[in-house]
Formats: sequence, structure tokens, C-alpha cells
Amino acid sequence: MTSLTPLLDETIAGIRPPDAGAIAEARARQDRLTKPRGSLGALEDVAVRLAGIAGRCPPPIPEPAAVAVFAADHGVHAQGVSPWPQEVTAQMVLNFVAGGAAINVLAAASGARVQVVDVGVASPLDDAPGLVRRAVRPGTADLTREPAMSRVEALATMETGVAMARDLVADGHACLVTGDMGIANTTASAALVAAFCATDPATVTGRGTGIDDVTWRRKVGAVRSALDLHAAVTARADEDPVAVLAAVGGLEHAAIAGLVLGAAALRVPVILDGVIAGSAALVASAVAPDSIGTCFAGHRSAEPGHTVAMRALGLEPLVDLGLRLGEGTGAVLALPLVQAAARVLRDMATFDSAGVTDKGTHG
Amino acid sequence: MTSLTPLLDETIAGIRPPDAGAIAEARARQDRLTKPRGSLGALEDVAVRLAGIAGRCPPPIPEPAAVAVFAADHGVHAQGVSPWPQEVTAQMVLNFVAGGAAINVLAAASGARVQVVDVGVASPLDDAPGLVRRAVRPGTADLTREPAMSRVEALATMETGVAMARDLVADGHACLVTGDMGIANTTASAALVAAFCATDPATVTGRGTGIDDVTWRRKVGAVRSALDLHAAVTARADEDPVAVLAAVGGLEHAAIAGLVLGAAALRVPVILDGVIAGSAALVASAVAPDSIGTCFAGHRSAEPGHTVAMRALGLEPLVDLGLRLGEGTGAVLALPLVQAAARVLRDMATFDSAGVTDKGTHG
Repeated sequence: MTSLTPLLDETIAGIRPPDAGAIAEARARQDRLTKPRGSLGALEDVAVRLAGIAGRCPPPIPEPAAVAVFAADHGVHAQGVSPWPQEVTAQMVLNFVAGGAAINVLAAASGARVQVVDVGVASPLDDAPGLVRRAVRPGTADLTREPAMSRVEALATMETGVAMARDLVADGHACLVTGDMGIANTTASAALVAAFCATDPATVTGRGTGIDDVTWRRKVGAVRSALDLHAAVTARADEDPVAVLAAVGGLEHAAIAGLVLGAAALRVPVILDGVIAGSAALVASAVAPDSIGTCFAGHRSAEPGHTVAMRALGLEPLVDLGLRLGEGTGAVLALPLVQAAARVLRDMATFDSAGVTDKGTHG
Repeated sequence: MTSLTPLLDETIAGIRPPDAGAIAEARARQDRLTKPRGSLGALEDVAVRLAGIAGRCPPPIPEPAAVAVFAADHGVHAQGVSPWPQEVTAQMVLNFVAGGAAINVLAAASGARVQVVDVGVASPLDDAPGLVRRAVRPGTADLTREPAMSRVEALATMETGVAMARDLVADGHACLVTGDMGIANTTASAALVAAFCATDPATVTGRGTGIDDVTWRRKVGAVRSALDLHAAVTARADEDPVAVLAAVGGLEHAAIAGLVLGAAALRVPVILDGVIAGSAALVASAVAPDSIGTCFAGHRSAEPGHTVAMRALGLEPLVDLGLRLGEGTGAVLALPLVQAAARVLRDMATFDSAGVTDKGTHG
């Protein structure tokens, strides 16, 4: 890996693979708990992975949690890829800050805090209590015509993500949840997935919040144009992933990639939301493969690019309820499941302690 | 429907279909909330159904919740359908009462109370604080040789379920979660599903907590023997579902069926666990079809009979994490999702109130 910035280099250098000893201990402990072996399914794997992340067994309960909602706009909106006007991004930021959006309600239900971060909203946005301003530019450029952002802007916004991870963990949060807002950001996500997974745009481009056939074809065309224009950059995705992010990504993708790196360096679990987070995690993975060891896939997005990204990252979504909203809503729904998994490993009785006869898996 | 008992008849007479007005109001409200229409997927349907159950919009948040864990043994255990010794049922009851089982940990994580009810544990079981004793017999008879229980015993245990629903709701619980414990109870569940859904035993019999091929074939054989022996009863499943329950069911199935009826009469939502609850719900549905309007399928069990039962009941599971433990664990994992769905409908801002531009589904 080439050098990025001092902060990013230091962060990446601090990322370790999951702790094999804690994983082995957690697996052994799962098998002594008063339940048939493996009978809690994916919940057992979540707890084992948490032990690997924390480096101890049982792992700490990943609470309290914070949802970092990174908001930004996208120049590709000019290509008519979304039915929503661009000012909805800023309107929704105000809705987040006022506490009226789905992510506010679902985060409150899960006991998580919401932190809203402007990393590039295009419309004028007044300061508001609770809104962190970190925009290096008012939205990206149109990725079908030029790079979405400069390399410097991409790196600075990745640093914002790292800093947000550090701040939230310093504030006592033991689990980070990714959130995002940005009209047209599924277009940039599709371009990132197509670039990193070498997939045809038509197979990774979805209907976002719900678009008709004509708009979908236009969206696929935009992704295809972007990949054609930036072919020289995407061909070198493995060697220079930040260049791909700058060419076809979004500012919230840069921030989420940074958040993943920052959390991984601190050994704090991250729950990824849908395709925006999934495509951003591809960037984090390309920069520091071990960072994905700290990630859980919160939910299965309806976006086809999400499935491709999760397969590439080896992550299996926890919740599958047909959500296609973003904001972090799917990930925060998975938060109670992740926390419950940790409690099982810590709090359940063992066969010995409870005096229950153990017949193992098959008796 | 023929008369059952005064308590059951009165309960069934009190069950109404979901409130169409509240459902329409909830649908209309979902579409005014600050999110693309339908973008919260199944969560939106859950909230709409909760409004129909409660008869008002927004519906009350279904909390606090209680998990009723009904424990009983099964005479069919003698056929070698499970690798676990029968005394594990009683051992696990003590584990529940002591708070060391998976259901205790997961219920605590979801903020739900656990109520353990002995409806027919075979092994000697001392009184214990928090254990409700309602057994009419120490486990069922072997359903491959005789009816599992008498009609009177089935009705009395259904009444226990109704009474438990009434008691828990009177104690302030606004959501009931079904739980069960009984070594060999997936065999009785498979027999119930095969009988009510007219399905071949091999397609509805699963591996329970994890059995090998030889045991599985023996289990299918036991279900087939039971259906052959009780063919005259199961042929009249529609007219006399209680006779089917008595012939091939379990005492915890009777109690869960009663719990569903009792909750439905009180318009309180019920979250069903896996195949034991699903097969018991088939009994409730046959006795009072509208009772299923109050039920949610908590999770997708690995048992094939569960999928058949859910299809017959028109219920779509909320969580799918490969659990095969029972106790109510899958259902209680879905509890935060159901509660979150209600909060969304009550607490989210509307497009008008938040000043967000509404482009509808397709703009």
C-alpha cells in the first residue's frame, strides 16, 4: 500500500486481524452453553466474531452504540438518475437534526445515538445544534464527466471518518453504525461496486428508493459512462483504491470508509447499512483488508450491488426485511441482534453449572 | 364450530377480525412519513397490522412483553426420535427458572419477562419460585400407539393458555411471545402440520435440535405411524381440530393454541416462535381463524414443517438466522423489530411537518 496521509497511514498500521485465541475460546464456550451445539445459528457466529474483534472472551457488550450519518450530494444527479430533487438531502439533514427521520426513531428504539455529519451537502445548510460540518466541497462533481472529487478531498473526507470513529469511541460508544444521506448516492455506489468487483453496471445498479424503468436505464447508462471515462483508474483499483473512490465515489463513501478504518484500529465493531456502506467497505477493504474483520452486515439491501459487495467481503446480512431507505436504518435494526449475541456468550449457563445433561450435537 | 368449554367458547366469541379502519389510516400515515413510500419494507406492514390489532392508529407500542414458556414431555420420546434424554425437559425448566437459558438472556436483552409454565413435565419437578404448575398429566402418551391425551386434557390445557394470556395482559404486558420446552416436541409438531396441512410426514419432519439420518428416518416413521393410527380423526381436522390436537399434539401445543386465542380476544399481539408455535397456531386457526390476525411469525425455523405452517397461515417470518433451539428464542429476537415498527408509525415526522419535498414512489 502506498502512503496516504499521516493519520490514515497510522490508522491502517494499527489494524490487526481478529484475535485467533479469543475466537477459539469463544467457540469452545458456545459449545458448553445449555443449548444444542450450533442451535443459535448465526447468532453464535456473531458472538464469536465479537470476541475476535475485542481480543477477549466473553467480549464486551457492544453498547452504547452510535450511528454516524454522513450526508453529501452527488454531481451525477444532473444525469436524471433520481426522481428526488437534490435539496432533499439538506431537508433530510434538518429532519435528522430535529429527530423526525426513520433513523432517529429506529436508533432511539435500539438505544443508539445519532450523529449527523455534513461531508458535502450542496444546498445551503445553516448551522444546527448537533450537526457536525466537515464538507470539503458542496457535493461531488458529475462522475460521468470528470472525477467526482480530487484525491486530496477524498483523503480529507476519509480522515473525517477516522476522526468521527475516534471521537465516538472516546465518548464511550462501543459499537458504530454507518448511516448515509445523499440523493443519487446509489449511483455512485453502483459505480464503486462495478469498479472494485469488476462487474457489469447493469448487474449492480438498482432502483434506489424506487425508480421506473426509464430512469433505471438512464442510471445504468450513467454508471457505464463513468466506468468508461475512468477505465484507466478502475483498472488499477487494487493498487490505488483511493483513486477509484475519488473518480466514481461519493463524499459519504469516503467518510464511511474512514469510519471503518478508524473503528478497526480501535477494535470496535461496525454495523454496515446497505449498498452505500457496502461499497464504501470495498474501499476500506482494498486499503486495509483486515478492517473488514470488524464489520457486520446489518441487513440485506434490495440493491443488487449490495449482494455483490457482501459476497466480495464475505459478509452475511443479519436482517432481511426489504428495506431500501438508507440513513443507517437497516444496520440499526440489526444492532439489538448483535448485542443479544454478545449477551448470550457472556450470560448463559453452562451444562455443568446448570446441571443439564449434555448430549452434544447428535447424542 | 362446536362448543368446547365455557371459557374457550367465550374467548373465541370475543375474537374480531383486524380493524379495517385503523389499517387504512395506518397505510395512509405510512405514506406521509418522511421516507420514500414502502422503503421500510416489511417493517411498514408490521406497523399496519399492529394498528389493525389494536383498532387504532398509531397503535400502542407493544411493550412491555412477556414470553410464556410452556414445558411438557412427549410419550413419543420412547420411539427414539431424539438423542436427548427426557429428563432434560425438567432440567431445562430449572435452568429457565434460574435464569441461565438462552431464552432468559435473549428476553432480558429485549426487555421481556419470562414466565415458565409446567403443563406436563414427566420427570419429578420441585416447586420453584416463578414456576407456574398447570400440568394435567406428566407428559403425553405415545402418539404412535394411542391418542397423546384425552379431549378433556387438551381443552383444560388450552384453557391454561387462555388464562396465562389474560394474567400476563392484566399484569400490564402489551405483547406476548410464545416459548416452549419439551424433548421430542418437534415430532408432535410435524404430526400436527402433516394433519392440518395434509402433507406427507417426510416433507414436514425436520432434524429438531440436530439428529442424524437414522434418527430422522425413525422420526418420520413415528409421524407416519401416528397419522395412520389416527387417520379417522385427522380426516375431520376442519370439523374437530381439538380431536387432532389430542390425538397427535403435545400439551405445550395446547397451551400455545390457548395463548393465541386468549391474546386475540384481548387484541394483544403475539409473536410466534418456531415450529412448535407454528403447529399450535394451526390449531388456533382451525378453532378461530381470526385469531391469526393477532400473530406475527418471529423467525424462520430450520424445521421444514414450520415453512409449511407459515404458508398455510399466511405469515412471513421476520428473522432468519438459522436458529433451531426453541424456548421462544427466535420470537424474542423479533420483538425489538416489532416494537421499532410501531415507533416508526407513531414518532416519525411527516413530509408536511418536516418541510421535506415529497416525490412519492416514482417522482
